Amino acid sequence: MTTAAFLGLGAMGYPMASHLTRLGETLVWNRTPGRAEQHAAEFGSRAVTLEETAQADVIFTCLPTSDDVEGLLDRLLPLLKPGTIWVDCTSGRPAAGREQAQRLQQAGAAFLDAPVSGGPTGAKAGTLAVMVGGETEVLERARPLIESFGGTVLRVGPVGTGFAVKAVNNVLMAVHLWATAEGFASLQQQGVDLDAALSVINASSGRSFSSENKFPKILKREFAPFFKLSLLAKDAGIALENVQEVRGSAPLLAQTAMLLRAAQASQSEDADHAELVKFVEAMFGHGTLIAGEASSS
Amino acid sequence: MTTAAFLGLGAMGYPMASHLTRLGETLVWNRTPGRAEQHAAEFGSRAVTLEETAQADVIFTCLPTSDDVEGLLDRLLPLLKPGTIWVDCTSGRPAAGREQAQRLQQAGAAFLDAPVSGGPTGAKAGTLAVMVGGETEVLERARPLIESFGGTVLRVGPVGTGFAVKAVNNVLMAVHLWATAEGFASLQQQGVDLDAALSVINASSGRSFSSENKFPKILKREFAPFFKLSLLAKDAGIALENVQEVRGSAPLLAQTAMLLRAAQASQSEDADHAELVKFVEAMFGHGTLIAGEASSS
Amino acid sequence: MTTAAFLGLGAMGYPMASHLTRLGETLVWNRTPGRAEQHAAEFGSRAVTLEETAQADVIFTCLPTSDDVEGLLDRLLPLLKPGTIWVDCTSGRPAAGREQAQRLQQAGAAFLDAPVSGGPTGAKAGTLAVMVGGETEVLERARPLIESFGGTVLRVGPVGTGFAVKAVNNVLMAVHLWATAEGFASLQQQGVDLDAALSVINASSGRSFSSENKFPKILKREFAPFFKLSLLAKDAGIALENVQEVRGSAPLLAQTAMLLRAAQASQSEDADHAELVKFVEAMFGHGTLIAGEASSS
Amino acid sequence: MTTAAFLGLGAMGYPMASHLTRLGETLVWNRTPGRAEQHAAEFGSRAVTLEETAQADVIFTCLPTSDDVEGLLDRLLPLLKPGTIWVDCTSGRPAAGREQAQRLQQAGAAFLDAPVSGGPTGAKAGTLAVMVGGETEVLERARPLIESFGGTVLRVGPVGTGFAVKAVNNVLMAVHLWATAEGFASLQQQGVDLDAALSVINASSGRSFSSENKFPKILKREFAPFFKLSLLAKDAGIALENVQEVRGSAPLLAQTAMLLRAAQASQSEDADHAELVKFVEAMFGHGTLIAGEASSS
Repeated sequence: MTTAAFLGLGAMGYPMASHLTRLGETLVWNRTPGRAEQHAAEFGSRAVTLEETAQADVIFTCLPTSDDVEGLLDRLLPLLKPGTIWVDCTSGRPAAGREQAQRLQQAGAAFLDAPVSGGPTGAKAGTLAVMVGGETEVLERARPLIESFGGTVLRVGPVGTGFAVKAVNNVLMAVHLWATAEGFASLQQQGVDLDAALSVINASSGRSFSSENKFPKILKREFAPFFKLSLLAKDAGIALENVQEVRGSAPLLAQTAMLLRAAQASQSEDADHAELVKFVEAMFGHGTLIAGEASSS
Repeated sequence: MTTAAFLGLGAMGYPMASHLTRLGETLVWNRTPGRAEQHAAEFGSRAVTLEETAQADVIFTCLPTSDDVEGLLDRLLPLLKPGTIWVDCTSGRPAAGREQAQRLQQAGAAFLDAPVSGGPTGAKAGTLAVMVGGETEVLERARPLIESFGGTVLRVGPVGTGFAVKAVNNVLMAVHLWATAEGFASLQQQGVDLDAALSVINASSGRSFSSENKFPKILKREFAPFFKLSLLAKDAGIALENVQEVRGSAPLLAQTAMLLRAAQASQSEDADHAELVKFVEAMFGHGTLIAGEASSS
Repeated sequence: MTTAAFLGLGAMGYPMASHLTRLGETLVWNRTPGRAEQHAAEFGSRAVTLEETAQADVIFTCLPTSDDVEGLLDRLLPLLKPGTIWVDCTSGRPAAGREQAQRLQQAGAAFLDAPVSGGPTGAKAGTLAVMVGGETEVLERARPLIESFGGTVLRVGPVGTGFAVKAVNNVLMAVHLWATAEGFASLQQQGVDLDAALSVINASSGRSFSSENKFPKILKREFAPFFKLSLLAKDAGIALENVQEVRGSAPLLAQTAMLLRAAQASQSEDADHAELVKFVEAMFGHGTLIAGEASSS
Repeated sequence: MTTAAFLGLGAMGYPMASHLTRLGETLVWNRTPGRAEQHAAEFGSRAVTLEETAQADVIFTCLPTSDDVEGLLDRLLPLLKPGTIWVDCTSGRPAAGREQAQRLQQAGAAFLDAPVSGGPTGAKAGTLAVMVGGETEVLERARPLIESFGGTVLRVGPVGTGFAVKAVNNVLMAVHLWATAEGFASLQQQGVDLDAALSVINASSGRSFSSENKFPKILKREFAPFFKLSLLAKDAGIALENVQEVRGSAPLLAQTAMLLRAAQASQSEDADHAELVKFVEAMFGHGTLIAGEASSS
């Protein structure tokens, strides 16, 4: 029977790891160990030391950045069993993923980049979208575990391509959110009922995940912590790096990556990504977007 | 019983006017009269001269631009009955709408701007989203007729705001389409399976109407005529004009409006809006987006 | 002998009008009359009522916007003598200029748009650059007066083109200032000696009027009032309007116009245009540009 | 007496190396050896093998990219004498410079990044601007040699900062050129005499090195090979990389970097950087910028 380990029990990792326990022994580790013990108590996983996770057949990581993953890999690489599969669910950098895959291969282990979309809600429900980069055969071995938390699990190409697709997905989400905020700031100044405008746009061709799922809350000024603005800015930066690596031209993505850094600089470290709207409003220079409300211009 | 007139039987107007015939007498007019006669034969409307449409209780217009509507208004204004409602479904300019409303008011008539979203398919099905600017009481009198072709009919504010919301809806659709094309051009260069990437993004937070409805066809290189690129560029221009009128700052909308003009300049006059993807590909400098295909970078 | 009138004795108009007094009788008018009386006392001009300026052979206006000029024209038009030349040195809108020219022509008068560049310093020295739109023959009649304050006086085309060139000149100045600020914010973070960097760039291909004349002061945090940020934002808006009118694509100019509005929204009403640098610094998110200083990154 | 070596006799290196011969023995090397022999014959330098250049006290490199320099360093590092100074005049990457400096230091040698501005003309005249990163003491030892071809030689900070300043200088030059082209495309459509407009802008605040030195030739459609568009696009990419490394926000620089890639993709490999104007014209969608000419709009 397969033993899984899950490293990184943050807002995403904590619920993701809970699904693994249904399939077999699940080792959990977190930088602050109390969180691992809480997970063990709640879901029947086993809180272990970092070194002990090296005994797992499949090791999952879900951390803020590729640098964090590299730090763990440095420590675990000498301890890994041949045949281990390392599945990195971090929103990482493709180049880092390719390098990690190479180091693991030299140790007889394999690597999949498998970042996820769907937020804490999707993680709890086990319906995350998972974009996988790596060998088909490796994915098939790890698939049952990945499907425990994933509703859509698709291989998008060789190692690193999962990270590449995730970076594009996230920068698109940011583009949609930012552009919608610009549009609504303009409509507000023109005396439009924003609530009605959102309803009709969400029934029209201008709709997006962002307008359907985020904007109703934004117009109520609800900015619950969900996904940090600093991480979204990082992801957009990865997408831009990838464009530059292939010497491509992506003016809208580049512009959005730059604007996100400015929004981040104007907010607190813990700001949620949706709070970029506040910077859009400040740039626009008038008022605050609130449902149904419109200035008299 | 209410008599309706419909002026402008293009790709949208032709099917929209067909629904009115279920509610009562429907006069139809088109610049090229053969099209009106065809409509009469097919749906039981009555093809008339422009002057005869002035006898209707509610006059609908659905034309390429506000300038075209102004041309008709110049000719019909002296002939209108008091109490007439003029419903303009054109994707027009808010300032033009406000001026038209004023002229009609002086003649004892009323104005609604009521642009629509949903394309020829939605027009045929009678499920268009309709964003209405104007007096609530006027809308209520015209509502049964508007709902004959509209699935979602929402008042978004005073005269002109329907046009404003439509311009924002359309520029958002363009932003989404353009940014998605940039993202896929980058992914293609990174060796990604584009078909799989689209499926997983459409299950993730980066999805939009554009990615769900347009991109599957784009990856198959299907660019059937649906909505002209030149009209989308015009609409984005209106959105930018509106931003400037209120002295706002909308960098992503402005950049998209500029890029659309460049895309338009590189295509034929009849190009469909989805063909903007070809200009994105040319800017990116590599290959052509085709489903499932990825360059070896 | 020619009688000149000068309307609008602001930071530019006050010294410009002083040069006219050398050539003949000079009537001066200002919204706040004390300023006109001061001018008369200092330079031997004659402070008059607005109506009295209509007796001049050549009427100069130098006001914040075309709307302000229109207001004066409304009042003076019925009083003008045939043959009068109206020279508008405002940074105005081409469309407004064309309309003003038409109204004046119907009254037997002529119009030149003649905006200037060079700031209060150039105005005092009588070395302004003057970009003139209008009939060659009209310009030749007014040339001696214009050359009293202009070092370079060039006809750039028919009525309105002077305004068009001025708008482009000013948006270019803004582009250069903004881009240089972005570059220096980046260099500062990389541990560069900004003073040395400015010296070497000013000896290199990256230099501009902005880097040569404005940046040395900016690095010393000197932001003396010279030319308002709100007026620069207005001028960039005119340039963008002109691009849209001809359905052109100018992504850098459009982006700069948008960013200027955001900078303006973040500053006080009286902020100098060079203070846009403070918004660039805020977007960049680190520190403040000071000569010779570099963060330790 | 100091022996100098110069590696890379391209359009810049060839004339730069000629000045060194006045100060002492000068070894020259080029990938295609004929060019080195021609240099020796013309200026009295000595054409040698790559390995022989390791005997010089000061080694200059002037190559297309940092990768090219790294290739030479790999081969020469084992052969270098302690105390050697390696002066890299390439428009390189700061990170590459820091790595090269470290490798040289381990071999007892020193590194300066010393990119130049001024083009082949400045190189021939010995009046280049040189932006130097590295230790002050190292620069002072190499200064006489550097000043043989440099008119302005300024230390801007530690190793890597010379490259950083050069990247910013070049992207600024590109911004100015691009924005000026956009402005002139707009003016042309508005019926402006472009030649007169250029003269007056060059006497005004909108002027730049690009408008003063490049635009007069561009309006005559002269695009002599001077500096490749592909190299300018690379430099702008370096500037953008540097912004991202410090997590900064530089929207105008980013947009320009993206547009340059698009311009490059639309031109031949050998296109001069000024030919980016052709892409600006294509985006604008109308006509071609020619001195004095204006469309009738």
